[in-house]
Amino acid sequence: MDDLEPSISRTRVSAILEDGDALAGQRAVVGGWVVAGREQGRGAFAFLAVSDGSCPAALQVVVEAGAGAGVPLARLTPMGTSVLLEGRLQRPPAGSSAERVELRVERVIEVGEVDAAAYPLRKSMRKPENFRDLVHLRARTNTFFDNNGFLQPMITTSDCEGAGEIFQVTTLFSQGGGTIPYKDDGTIAFEDDFFKRQAFLTVSGQLQAENYACALSSVYTFGPTFRAENSRTSRHLAEFWMVEPEIAFASLQDDMNCAESYIQYLCKELLEYCEKDLEFIDNKFAESPTAIQCLKLVSSTLFERISYKQAVNILKGVEEGTFDKAIEWGIDLASEHERYLTEKIFMRPVIVYNYPKEIKPFYMRLNDDQKTVAAMDVLVPKVGELIGGSQREERLDILKKRITDSGLSVEPYEWYLDLCWFGSVRHSGFGMGFDRMVLFATGLENIRDVIPFPRCPGRADL
Amino acid sequence: MDDLEPSISRTRVSAILEDGDALAGQRAVVGGWVVAGREQGRGAFAFLAVSDGSCPAALQVVVEAGAGAGVPLARLTPMGTSVLLEGRLQRPPAGSSAERVELRVERVIEVGEVDAAAYPLRKSMRKPENFRDLVHLRARTNTFFDNNGFLQPMITTSDCEGAGEIFQVTTLFSQGGGTIPYKDDGTIAFEDDFFKRQAFLTVSGQLQAENYACALSSVYTFGPTFRAENSRTSRHLAEFWMVEPEIAFASLQDDMNCAESYIQYLCKELLEYCEKDLEFIDNKFAESPTAIQCLKLVSSTLFERISYKQAVNILKGVEEGTFDKAIEWGIDLASEHERYLTEKIFMRPVIVYNYPKEIKPFYMRLNDDQKTVAAMDVLVPKVGELIGGSQREERLDILKKRITDSGLSVEPYEWYLDLCWFGSVRHSGFGMGFDRMVLFATGLENIRDVIPFPRCPGRADL
Repeated sequence: MDDLEPSISRTRVSAILEDGDALAGQRAVVGGWVVAGREQGRGAFAFLAVSDGSCPAALQVVVEAGAGAGVPLARLTPMGTSVLLEGRLQRPPAGSSAERVELRVERVIEVGEVDAAAYPLRKSMRKPENFRDLVHLRARTNTFFDNNGFLQPMITTSDCEGAGEIFQVTTLFSQGGGTIPYKDDGTIAFEDDFFKRQAFLTVSGQLQAENYACALSSVYTFGPTFRAENSRTSRHLAEFWMVEPEIAFASLQDDMNCAESYIQYLCKELLEYCEKDLEFIDNKFAESPTAIQCLKLVSSTLFERISYKQAVNILKGVEEGTFDKAIEWGIDLASEHERYLTEKIFMRPVIVYNYPKEIKPFYMRLNDDQKTVAAMDVLVPKVGELIGGSQREERLDILKKRITDSGLSVEPYEWYLDLCWFGSVRHSGFGMGFDRMVLFATGLENIRDVIPFPRCPGRADL
Repeated sequence: MDDLEPSISRTRVSAILEDGDALAGQRAVVGGWVVAGREQGRGAFAFLAVSDGSCPAALQVVVEAGAGAGVPLARLTPMGTSVLLEGRLQRPPAGSSAERVELRVERVIEVGEVDAAAYPLRKSMRKPENFRDLVHLRARTNTFFDNNGFLQPMITTSDCEGAGEIFQVTTLFSQGGGTIPYKDDGTIAFEDDFFKRQAFLTVSGQLQAENYACALSSVYTFGPTFRAENSRTSRHLAEFWMVEPEIAFASLQDDMNCAESYIQYLCKELLEYCEKDLEFIDNKFAESPTAIQCLKLVSSTLFERISYKQAVNILKGVEEGTFDKAIEWGIDLASEHERYLTEKIFMRPVIVYNYPKEIKPFYMRLNDDQKTVAAMDVLVPKVGELIGGSQREERLDILKKRITDSGLSVEPYEWYLDLCWFGSVRHSGFGMGFDRMVLFATGLENIRDVIPFPRCPGRADL
């Protein structure tokens, strides 16, 4: 694990403001975005109001010129700058206009600067309609605070995975008497469609979740996602639900910790609150190991964590002829490999991390080796991959290059690049297939039997 | 209110089996479906195992020949029959093989018969794959129990409202090099599309929720729904989320009670848990009445309930020139009429019920006057319609006629008719627009400002 960054324990602004007096004198790490900032005392201090989305109010922060670790104070003050700061909480000085506990900074851990001239949000913009053309940034205005969940859109004009296996949403077949409109060059006139351009069903709420994480620091979304893949396996659906947390100031290690505790939490809740249902399922479809045995194993065992490189080396040592697909560095692990690791080698859940960049999407953070990205997959017995996640690329130049290297056009991702341009932060997240989790929890064989209305190639009953 | 059926208070099987001994000797009304039934003692008794989806186990029920109110016992015993029964709970007789409290029936309130020869479910079918072609009935097998929520599908091949304003989901524009495939008759070959037929984005999870309510008795769904309407109002979106409860054995009156308590519950929760957020919103966008004032009014006031006929008569009495759209019996109430009723006349939420059948969808239950249906809309200040619901038509012949009278073809609704054919029950439900509720709760003016990624004609940013 020494190839991974350490994780950081951050205190939320809401917790500081609620318990302020009790916390005075203690050390804290705070991450967030500057709502307002000014220098004072001829450059001796900067006063910042920092918001992390955990409550409508911002935390008052004082930075002395020396504390900035070489960062000039003027680079901390523009609205929208992201900061990760360590310091001591203290009551405001007597006679000060401030009423609540403030953070006196001792170390500036990270800064994500803002190009203030280009930043489209302005203090003077107050009405909600001012922000309608800035949907990717308006979460940073204080009308859009939230503690956790938000609703992602189903209909999207950007393709998160860039894989092309997406459904298009259209009214062209029913409008204009059913005659498809063509342009002079022979291509279809999608300008005439409902959204005036091509629109698709989302493959993931991740990019939208990143918008909100880069304003509210910790968010999740839970909703349907869609893949027009022609897979007829027992573990794929064309329509499935995903739980997608996205956490600002989190490294890949934090991401793995979150994924592991989340799965363990789900297993414990199931064992505690659905005992009779699980017994019923185990009696009806008795298999070995039973669903209850699997849940107990997963809820009580530390997950094994190995790099992709280690995984490949282990699988290379397995007796020849075991796998249909040959194993070598660079391949995407197949389901047979994943299940072998979790079921035969480790007999517990396994997290594989640091995958080759060629087999992962552009938004995953490039590691220093320039060959791998900070990706991670959680594998569990019987089901294989249950979670896929990564630390996201927060460096503007590298992200741009990864988009073009992936053969994608930059234009549809301009808004996504804005997140790096204006107050960029380290952030990580993952997606858990909800239907796969149900498959794992019930121990059934086929995902079509665990959800009410499965959709797959050629089938969309009702 | 004397034109409405009384409501019935039903006890769930799970509550009876959990508290069995404590309840012995008490009266109870139980509604559910016969899992197994047999006559005994030369037709003197029927023994039924009745399941209502509240737990995996079924309740043992004993019916004496005389208790059936003219219903021969043989009509109660087929698997899938729906029953609403009143009786006394008692411990099983000493020496009986039964272990738990059973219901000794004194009154058969309702029976929904099953055409046993046509019913496609069989006791001998045990494996989940046997039910994959019966997605509309498999909720009745005991693998598909659930206490409340279920996930509705987004992609559907049936159009709930029959209104035609729906988005189509397709891969035809990207497959085959982008050339649309045509059949010999000049129409588009949707057989080549991903689902081998035309598929759409759902306009409501209601019909699917009815499937589950007609097996598990009380369910709800919460998910995105879509309308390809070309509306550019401040209260319409092309993609919005709906909460849709569906309750078996419930009349329109039960439905209104449920809607009223649900809205009041939401308002109370908001006032209790989001006080600071609401104060922040009220300060930032000060309006009269404020959001907090509206929430307090709605949470603490009985909702006015008036028939559509009464509503029209009241509005006819309003000074001429007040409304853009003239008011007369038979029109669909416009937003201006709805808001006038709740804001000016009653100054509280209003439930309008029993609408003309011509302006409502086919699935709403025809009233005895043959002119109106058992529909209801809940209107609140500032927003107008927040909930629309109805008692559903459970009589097979009338439902068929309503489908054809609406100009629809019966074929796509065969599965829906099966619910009436096999163990039909009275049932009711409603849909609450989640985004509209957020609009109401925040007091903002435009629905595009209260959700993260609004979709409307010509706009699907990100």
